[in-house]
Amino acid sequence: MPPFDVPEGDPFGPHNLPYGVFSLTDPAGAPERRVGVRLGDHVLDAGAAAHALGSPYAGLLAQPTLDPLLAAGRTAWSDVRRALTAWVTVPAHRETLAPHFHPLSDVTLHLPFTVADYVDFYASENHARNVGQIFRPDAADSLTPNWKHLPIGYHGRSGTVVVSGTDVVRPSGQRKAPADTAPVFGPSIRLDIEAEVGFVVGTPSEQGRPVPLGDYRDHVFGLCLLNDWSARDIQAWEYVPLGPFLGKSFATSVSAWITPLDALDDARVAPPVRTHPLLPYLDDASEEPGGYDLRISVAINGHVVSEPPFSTMYWTAAQQLAHMTVNGASLRTGDLYGSGTVSGASEGERGSLLELTWNGRDALELPDGKRTFLEDGDEVTLTAWAPGPGGTRVGLGEVRGLITPAVSP
Amino acid sequence: MPPFDVPEGDPFGPHNLPYGVFSLTDPAGAPERRVGVRLGDHVLDAGAAAHALGSPYAGLLAQPTLDPLLAAGRTAWSDVRRALTAWVTVPAHRETLAPHFHPLSDVTLHLPFTVADYVDFYASENHARNVGQIFRPDAADSLTPNWKHLPIGYHGRSGTVVVSGTDVVRPSGQRKAPADTAPVFGPSIRLDIEAEVGFVVGTPSEQGRPVPLGDYRDHVFGLCLLNDWSARDIQAWEYVPLGPFLGKSFATSVSAWITPLDALDDARVAPPVRTHPLLPYLDDASEEPGGYDLRISVAINGHVVSEPPFSTMYWTAAQQLAHMTVNGASLRTGDLYGSGTVSGASEGERGSLLELTWNGRDALELPDGKRTFLEDGDEVTLTAWAPGPGGTRVGLGEVRGLITPAVSP
Repeated sequence: MPPFDVPEGDPFGPHNLPYGVFSLTDPAGAPERRVGVRLGDHVLDAGAAAHALGSPYAGLLAQPTLDPLLAAGRTAWSDVRRALTAWVTVPAHRETLAPHFHPLSDVTLHLPFTVADYVDFYASENHARNVGQIFRPDAADSLTPNWKHLPIGYHGRSGTVVVSGTDVVRPSGQRKAPADTAPVFGPSIRLDIEAEVGFVVGTPSEQGRPVPLGDYRDHVFGLCLLNDWSARDIQAWEYVPLGPFLGKSFATSVSAWITPLDALDDARVAPPVRTHPLLPYLDDASEEPGGYDLRISVAINGHVVSEPPFSTMYWTAAQQLAHMTVNGASLRTGDLYGSGTVSGASEGERGSLLELTWNGRDALELPDGKRTFLEDGDEVTLTAWAPGPGGTRVGLGEVRGLITPAVSP
Repeated sequence: MPPFDVPEGDPFGPHNLPYGVFSLTDPAGAPERRVGVRLGDHVLDAGAAAHALGSPYAGLLAQPTLDPLLAAGRTAWSDVRRALTAWVTVPAHRETLAPHFHPLSDVTLHLPFTVADYVDFYASENHARNVGQIFRPDAADSLTPNWKHLPIGYHGRSGTVVVSGTDVVRPSGQRKAPADTAPVFGPSIRLDIEAEVGFVVGTPSEQGRPVPLGDYRDHVFGLCLLNDWSARDIQAWEYVPLGPFLGKSFATSVSAWITPLDALDDARVAPPVRTHPLLPYLDDASEEPGGYDLRISVAINGHVVSEPPFSTMYWTAAQQLAHMTVNGASLRTGDLYGSGTVSGASEGERGSLLELTWNGRDALELPDGKRTFLEDGDEVTLTAWAPGPGGTRVGLGEVRGLITPAVSP
């Protein structure tokens, strides 16, 4: 009986149960937003289910956003997940819950939480080396001197984080080719993607008090897929000396489903061997494995162009959290931080067109023509899965975005 | 009769009327936060006053933050200001309003609005040239090639913006002297200030739609003073290639009073003559004067160390807003953007200790000893005023912060 009998091998079985926020698409349906939990190709209205079962978690789940659940903290996260697992697996609940499931095709998915601060890191050594070789070909080392000592990051614009499926308007801005004497203004001609994983903070921290490495799971609720859209021409002209600004701030897309860390225990792996000694606040040698074996896939107009392996990331999410707060910066519920572009060691594993086409030198051959950077009408989709218990796969949903033409200023 | 008969020459007379949020300090008093308007050395409980007078603006003013007023837009801002001006100047209202005034000494001031995104610019040519000369002494030009073509900016951490009077814990982090082979960890030994002006966005904008120069006053509600605390040693090691991060993100202090743009009409001045042609979206030649004649004062432990003139800023707040959105980035109510460090042409007008001491080379002589960078226990206070109507001064309040010792990680 659907939705309960999810086919074997479905990456959204009861071992996964990611969270999102949905409304019923039918204009005659109730338009309000509710917390949903995905099971197969259905969404469970989690608040309605909690009410129907007399659950004490109705207060956290019968909400228009994930914010109250995120703020509730690690113990509540695990307790709620345990309850949800029972609801969707214990046959006695089936009749009660059936009316609260909706087919995915009947719902609209929304940005599931209020983004507080958004930080983006730069944690893939392969990506950083590729970028260094492309932009600083004469440098003695393709990595900057600080790269192996700290997870480099910067703040992005939280107000332009959008949910998967939101169109992305091609940004305009200044660019200047090396031979030009002055910059020109116009639509970006080097619009790119960055395939990343985003980490969602639930539990806040106090200003002035660093969060140590070992407290990562107390603060981070789960993860999502993230596409850090990047206008390379705008970025190249603006970024010295204060970093990327308009080249990144027009849009950042995240998947509609947030996968709780608790669903990813079987995906945890050791990060790559560290080549440089780490300062104590970043030294994870005695911590639990901090990497995740996530297999990402990047498709343009349905054609897979890359399969970046997240397990290759040099810096872990726990290290990034410890670094981000070591100066006393506080965390808020809804803080989002991106891993940085995920690029593996081989050509087919690069997470940006900048790297895949080596800054436009080597065009990709797609069924609908060649690509160096994105054209209007291109739709980019990131998907991913992770190993789950007993040989299952944990699906990470998708983040999708269609490029629409630039608007006149 | 106080509070109505503000002494002549008071920079917080009825020509000013800045907005803030306060609560009564007396533990027996009502603890809730309310919107306040400053008159002399008193605060008017604006919501209570609106209710007492049967004003239609009670809905905007009887609130715990300025957020609803900020979101109400330019017409409402001017209408509310006109009403408040009448309330505090028409003698017939005195008896009704008197109970709703509180002496400043009886109230606690709070962060007056919810900070959405925080962006910091770099708009003082004197500051940028000083920094260039200090950090890149061998460069042919102390400005980077983009500086005269666009207002350089970057995103900061909105979650660590604090109100004046909040202590600032000395941050710890990584630093590496050029001669060192590896970074060391510890409390910052080069803790600095940046004297800035902050602009507060009220009216949001749509993602994908740039905000033109001429729409500045429709979107920006007012301004505040801002101290962008900076750990120069942390910043120097981390900032290549993605810009400042932990060197800035531990705290940013803003004044408790937001001065509406409508109070600053007499302070508007033309910005410095532009030395380079501007792209059309930044060309303000045919716009109203975009600069402000704000006289800032920087004091350490009560001793004035600098008087930076805001009128020297090369890029205006309207240009910064147009630039920030030209790529389609949307605005939200509560967005805050800093001008960048304000430094005049002369030594006594520099807005950071980095410049005032030339990176620690020339110590300042204070009554309590020499200073290169800030010591624990130092209290920094920024104040400012602007020319008002009829020879008056418009006070911009103050932003104050005391440095407390680093905590162990």
